Amino acid sequence: MESSKNIKFTNYAIKEFIDLLASKEPAPGGGAAAALVGSIGVALSSMVANLTIGKEKFKYKEELMKEIVEKNEKLQKELLDLIEKDTEAFNKVADALKLPKNNPEEKEKRKEILENTLKEASLVPLEVMKKSLEALKILENTLGNSNPNAVSDIGVSALCLKSAIQSAWLNVKINLVSIRDKNFVNEIQRQAESLLEEGIQLADRIYEEVESVLQIS
Amino acid sequence: MESSKNIKFTNYAIKEFIDLLASKEPAPGGGAAAALVGSIGVALSSMVANLTIGKEKFKYKEELMKEIVEKNEKLQKELLDLIEKDTEAFNKVADALKLPKNNPEEKEKRKEILENTLKEASLVPLEVMKKSLEALKILENTLGNSNPNAVSDIGVSALCLKSAIQSAWLNVKINLVSIRDKNFVNEIQRQAESLLEEGIQLADRIYEEVESVLQIS
Repeated sequence: MESSKNIKFTNYAIKEFIDLLASKEPAPGGGAAAALVGSIGVALSSMVANLTIGKEKFKYKEELMKEIVEKNEKLQKELLDLIEKDTEAFNKVADALKLPKNNPEEKEKRKEILENTLKEASLVPLEVMKKSLEALKILENTLGNSNPNAVSDIGVSALCLKSAIQSAWLNVKINLVSIRDKNFVNEIQRQAESLLEEGIQLADRIYEEVESVLQIS
Repeated sequence: MESSKNIKFTNYAIKEFIDLLASKEPAPGGGAAAALVGSIGVALSSMVANLTIGKEKFKYKEELMKEIVEKNEKLQKELLDLIEKDTEAFNKVADALKLPKNNPEEKEKRKEILENTLKEASLVPLEVMKKSLEALKILENTLGNSNPNAVSDIGVSALCLKSAIQSAWLNVKINLVSIRDKNFVNEIQRQAESLLEEGIQLADRIYEEVESVLQIS
């Protein structure tokens, strides 16, 4: 785990990253996976817009599509960064767990440090939820406004972003379970559950619209 | 598109692959993304098993966990290969669409070649659905049998595999829409809808069990 602290995962080859994910190293794990799946969703949303730009039939949508690409570029970068941040935050919790607890002072200090690292570790997947919901709202603008050849890609984008939100939620939750500060727990739970509900509803609506367009005769 | 034919996408750095996915190149697209998200799901399932192997408390589950890792290794490789296969199949359809249609003979020949490439292109995401469902059945064995510290990773694995199945389904469907051979269409649709239903049910069951274990007091 120590060795993975200074590596940028987004520079790993896909095959290597998947192997590392599968290994007994606990990080990168589900939290990093959530951010990666979110970035895949954002990338597909950009592809749909890019496949629409320059098409005569959608000339009047060109500005909208360019705006989508521009906003997505930022989100994509942020979600890729969250792969690293999630692993860093996880490693800090793991380090805190290794602190000595031989006397009451050490126990108290360890408890305090652990609490703070758990809070940090819950905020990273919360950020993945926020960014993925933002991406869904941007994706919504492609419905009916983009190259119909890429309609299935809109659906896949929605599915990835939904999965990212739900996956990140599980990672918020597993950290909240161990945090003692009940005000913090209640506030983050409230925010996360609201993002979860809005994200699932929006993603399902986009998926269903895509599914209904693709009619097998 | 021509240039991407000889590149192995799994050797791309994650950041580069995401950029390529976002670009105006139609492949890699949603089909490749489905296979990649499936491989992320399988990798997390292996991580859960690997984090259980060697733990005294789960000594009696060691054989089961080793079996899970072994089966997943095969599935992970197959799903990563399907990233390439999906793009190859897509490129063949794109090439068929570029064939000349200046006279009835050319039109007939083009129609026939296009039909065959579309059939091939529908079978790749069908394979992604099969492999991801297989992975969910393997993942199910980790529930209650594995290191509880990794319970959220079981949930993320289930979410990724569900998303892979649904994403691949949209890619089966968009190809079936254009295929003329109704017997083929009906048979593949029947298979895919059955995989979709079974996959969603199993993934939802696993996710709900994980969610209920993670109780915030």
